[in-house]
Order: sequence, then C-alpha cells, then structure tokens
Amino acid sequence: MKLKPAPELTVSGWLNTAEPMSLAGLRGQIVLLEAFQMLCPGCVSHSLPQARRIAEHFTAHGVTVIGLHSVFEHHQAQGSREALAAFLHEYRIAFPVAMDAPGEAAGERGGLPRTMAAYAMQGTPTTILIDRQGRIRRHSFGAVTDLALGAAIGVLLAEGDPVSAPDGSDPEMACTPEGCPAP
Amino acid sequence: MKLKPAPELTVSGWLNTAEPMSLAGLRGQIVLLEAFQMLCPGCVSHSLPQARRIAEHFTAHGVTVIGLHSVFEHHQAQGSREALAAFLHEYRIAFPVAMDAPGEAAGERGGLPRTMAAYAMQGTPTTILIDRQGRIRRHSFGAVTDLALGAAIGVLLAEGDPVSAPDGSDPEMACTPEGCPAP
Amino acid sequence: MKLKPAPELTVSGWLNTAEPMSLAGLRGQIVLLEAFQMLCPGCVSHSLPQARRIAEHFTAHGVTVIGLHSVFEHHQAQGSREALAAFLHEYRIAFPVAMDAPGEAAGERGGLPRTMAAYAMQGTPTTILIDRQGRIRRHSFGAVTDLALGAAIGVLLAEGDPVSAPDGSDPEMACTPEGCPAP
Amino acid sequence: MKLKPAPELTVSGWLNTAEPMSLAGLRGQIVLLEAFQMLCPGCVSHSLPQARRIAEHFTAHGVTVIGLHSVFEHHQAQGSREALAAFLHEYRIAFPVAMDAPGEAAGERGGLPRTMAAYAMQGTPTTILIDRQGRIRRHSFGAVTDLALGAAIGVLLAEGDPVSAPDGSDPEMACTPEGCPAP
Repeated sequence: MKLKPAPELTVSGWLNTAEPMSLAGLRGQIVLLEAFQMLCPGCVSHSLPQARRIAEHFTAHGVTVIGLHSVFEHHQAQGSREALAAFLHEYRIAFPVAMDAPGEAAGERGGLPRTMAAYAMQGTPTTILIDRQGRIRRHSFGAVTDLALGAAIGVLLAEGDPVSAPDGSDPEMACTPEGCPAP
Repeated sequence: MKLKPAPELTVSGWLNTAEPMSLAGLRGQIVLLEAFQMLCPGCVSHSLPQARRIAEHFTAHGVTVIGLHSVFEHHQAQGSREALAAFLHEYRIAFPVAMDAPGEAAGERGGLPRTMAAYAMQGTPTTILIDRQGRIRRHSFGAVTDLALGAAIGVLLAEGDPVSAPDGSDPEMACTPEGCPAP
Repeated sequence: MKLKPAPELTVSGWLNTAEPMSLAGLRGQIVLLEAFQMLCPGCVSHSLPQARRIAEHFTAHGVTVIGLHSVFEHHQAQGSREALAAFLHEYRIAFPVAMDAPGEAAGERGGLPRTMAAYAMQGTPTTILIDRQGRIRRHSFGAVTDLALGAAIGVLLAEGDPVSAPDGSDPEMACTPEGCPAP
Repeated sequence: MKLKPAPELTVSGWLNTAEPMSLAGLRGQIVLLEAFQMLCPGCVSHSLPQARRIAEHFTAHGVTVIGLHSVFEHHQAQGSREALAAFLHEYRIAFPVAMDAPGEAAGERGGLPRTMAAYAMQGTPTTILIDRQGRIRRHSFGAVTDLALGAAIGVLLAEGDPVSAPDGSDPEMACTPEGCPAP
C-alpha cells in the first residue's frame, strides 16, 4: 500500500506554543493531529480527553499531540482566538493548538477551513496519526477507542528505535494474598 | 534486553474450549493471558471487560485471549469448576479460560496456584502479553489502561506481517457540516 | 390507593448483623430492601453500589438498607453462606444481608426462594421501598436511576418529622470568580 | 426554620421560550434553577446533563427546569446571545434558559451578574430548588449527586397533591429465572 504524505498545516494562528509549528519541523516525531471544535460535544467528552491522555502517556516516547481547531459552523460563537483561548484554559488543554485557516468563502456559511479541506475531513472529531516520515497512517472520523488508537500508535512506535510501550498499570485495583481493595 | 520465555500453563482444567490449549500450541499467535479471580472486584469491573474488548478488536489480527482463573483465596466460594462456569455464563465470557492448578499446600490457606507461582504474579488482575515467539513482553499487575495495553499489542502486531491496526472509530459521535448528534 | 403491607422476610440466615432482623422490628424506619444474586451482573455493577450509596446518604435520615440474597439459579455456585460471605467481603458490602429461604422444591432447578415468592419478584435486582408503617411504596425490577429512587425516598422522608434531605454537593467541581478546577 | 423567598430573576433575555418567564408566574410549580456557564467544565459534564434528566423525569410531576447563564468570566467568549444559542443547540438543551443580567460594573472584569448576586451564588454550577410557594429549599454549589437532588425533589413532591414518584426502572438489566442479560 502506498502511503500518502500528510499535507502541511495551513493555519491562522497558534495557542499553547511560543513558536508556530509545522509538520515539516516535526519529522522524526510521531504526530497525533486532533481536529475539533470547542462546541462539538463528542470532541469535548471523548476526543480531547483522549488526546490529553495520549500526550501524558506517549510524549516521552516521541509522540507529539497537536490540536487543530477546524471551525465550520457557529463562526461567531467559536471562531475567535479569545473564545478558543478561554476554552483551552477552562478545559486545561496544554498541548499546542492551531487555528485552521478559514476557507475561500469564509463566513457563517463559508467554505471549510483549509487544513480540514486538504485532509478531506468529514467533520469533527477527526483523529489523524502521522508517522516519523510524515505519512498519514490513520484517519479516523468520530470517536475512536483507546484500544484501537493505542494499537495504531504502538505499530508506529515499533518502527523506530526499539522501545517499550508505556506502563500505565494501577496496582491499587488489585487483589493480593493480603486482600483486595475496596471496589 | 534479553526476553524471558513464557512458562507453560499448568492447569487443572479448561472451560470455553473443546480441547485443552497450551502456549506451545499457540506459537505464532500473540497471546494475552488474563489472570483473574471471579470474586476480585477489579477483575470483574475492569480487566475482564477489557479482555473481552481485546478479543473483539484483535482476534482477527492474530491475538488469542486466554483467561486464567488463579484462585488464591476464598477457595470454597470460587474454587470449583461449577462456580467458575456459572460466573463465565453470567458475565458472557466466551474466550477460553484455564483453571490454574492448585499449589503444593492447597487448601483454604494453601500455596499459590502453580501458573501464578511460575510467573511470579503478585495477585489479580495480572495481564501478561506474550509475543509470537512465546516470550513475555509485558507483565502488568493491577488495572492497565486501554491506551497502554493497546500500544503494547500494536508493538507486537508490527513485528509480524505488515498489518493495519483495527479501526474502532464511531462516526455516530461526530459533527459534520450537516450538524452534530445529541451528546 | 390502598397500600399493601410488606410481607415479613423468610430467611435462612443473616450476615453483617449480630442479631437477626425483621421488618416488624424496623417499624418507624424507612427500609430499602435490595434483592440480588452475587452472580447477577446488573446487581454487581448497578444496584449494590447504589444500595451502598443510599446507606451512606440516608442512614442518618432514618433509612435502613437490607440486602436480600435471593438465589434462584446456580445454587451450587452461589447458594452457600461461605460464597456469599466471600462476596460481601470482597465488595465491601457492610449493610445487613439476609439469605432468602429456599423454596419448597429447592435444588438446582428448585422453587423460587420464599421471600422472593412472597413479594412476587420477577428476578434480580429488585428494589423494594417500605415506609415507616411497613407498607410497600415502590417495587422496581431491574436497574433504577438514582434520581427516581432518590425522589421516592424523599417522598417518604417528607412524611415523617420535618427533615432536610442530605446535602451531597461537591464544590470541588465548581467554577468561581477565582477560576475553575481541572475537568 | 424560616424559609427565604426566592429573589425574582433579573435577566437580559431568554432562549428556548417564546415568552419571558418569571418565578412569580411559576408559583404552584416546583422550580429547579440551574446556574451555569457554557465554558464551565463541571456544568457541561455534570450539572446540565443532570438538569436534562430532571426535566425528563419530573416535568410531568410539576417540576419546571430553568437554566440561568450567569457569566462572570470570559465575557468575550461566552457573553453573547449567539454563543449561548450555539451551545444550547449543540448540547441539545431544550429547557428555557435565561441570560443573567450583567452587574453594575460589567465588562471583562466587571461585577457579578445580578441574579447571581441576588442569590449570593459562589460560582457555577449552582443548583437552586424552589418550592410551590416560591421559597428556596435547597442551594447547592458544585456538583450534586442524583440521589441527594432526587430526594430533595421528592420532599417537595410530597408536599403537594399525593403523588407517586417517577418510575425510571430498566428491566433490561435484570436476571430472571429465564436468564440474565449480557453485562
């Protein structure tokens, strides 16, 4: 199977990073690109908390998590930098977030944002996994399970230097010959 | 790092399989060995449902899930084949489950079950991941996150024939230019 | 509407109480009777944790929680006092639990337990709410929401001395002019 | 205990209702007043879904649920009618929502909204329960459990015409002599 190169991000600004970022500059890293809207319920309840967990688990293993705010509706409510900054502050999202650049016919009923269009995303959340060579390895629309996304990340981890996956076990939940914890 | 071969299972019986199984017979498969007790709350609420999800996601990708009932307490309540069979029936656990063989000094306060001892497990749940060559690649005591276990499985998947990880996305949760679903 | 008196419990033993109990002896208390089986998944995941929460919230307000182990299947696995005691120990269930007396034709395919039959319960979980006069005020089969069960308890609380319902709020989750907590 | 009359709402507008509402006009109804901000994580994850459940369970029993958008921070992001309307649309909130009137020194660092101040609310979420006589019966800051809030509603329900609390049970989760459902 021929793998497609991930199109470069076309954005109008960044939050949570001192310098603008680019996929070209991240070559050698595994990149998780999480496209969302601050008023998308599935993004808020599922995909953004998942992206936070991935940043916590895998940053030390060479995975960079980037949020992409791809606003294609409710531009007045969620289209400003101030609204996004307030949202990121309240939801404690600390990874870098790019503002997807408005499309040609921008406006309340305008065109799709440019990066969203370049990736042919259907909506939000969309979760894109990019390998160390800058190629798209997974494109998921809607909620993805932690098991499936973890496995996809593991496949990419294994392509690099020999690595061990993160531990993430919690002995507090276990029974031992001395007894079990409260459920 | 030198990897340790996974000790063969020493068991007193099997459920959910017509023929007894062995790790030797599973060479070439990735094996998830899930040690549990039917009265271990963390096993019932976390690890057994997780093992079921892994069986659903990864069986088609060459992963075999085996339960190991390693009873080291409450032998009267959970030590019989009948009790285990009733439990597996009610919790809809369909993957093969082995009954860990009692230790030398078996009884209400007897020795640890033999497979549990051979793996130096501390208690239940314990989740063991074995690669296609029969080597232990992960040994987790207590609850493991889906992300971490998924990544560990992905690392092993990548060592085989080129594979794609399972999809597992749910577009029902997504916003599109036509609208968002109810949260 | 004429309210039915709650039939007295017919049981073969008690756990978590020094003395046997009776509904007659609990007149003046609101009684939550939670019928369950230790191998009933909905009881373990939903109704027993709910009964624990009710004991925590409402014991100080005159509500007594009683578990009723009404075994109508898997008698070998869950029919013994030892099995029930192990279960209550591991799941940290501290409220009194009665063992429903076996029916006439007891055995693996025997009759329904006596108290279960007297209340015409359909299965487990069944949640029965009894008022201070010993009358059945609610009979629910299957999972009940906390809101609905809380409201039913509140109705009975209001019939006694003027009471205030328990507080149960958690300011840790709140935003103030000083900021919001992490989600 | 002397009960305090609930101060009238002072608002700058309404959504989800054709006509403005008032507490005076709701005398005879039990009123649940849910103060929130659209960028308050505890409101989005806990209190607004709870208010929806209350509307579903109790509207037929004489309970009116009203949302109160009391913005005291991030005025640019969440202070406009358009932002609130987009939020209510995406989160499928269908009960009437009032916009709390800005305080004297309104602005990005202005005074507290007027209704918030009149009730001496500490922040969001705040859940206020008002009885049929228009008196405050419960004032909770932060997340409230369904059990506690259900009980408080039940107490008020019992003060009216004899009522039965809503059912809310789900037999799908139950074991019967014919078997148990999948967990």
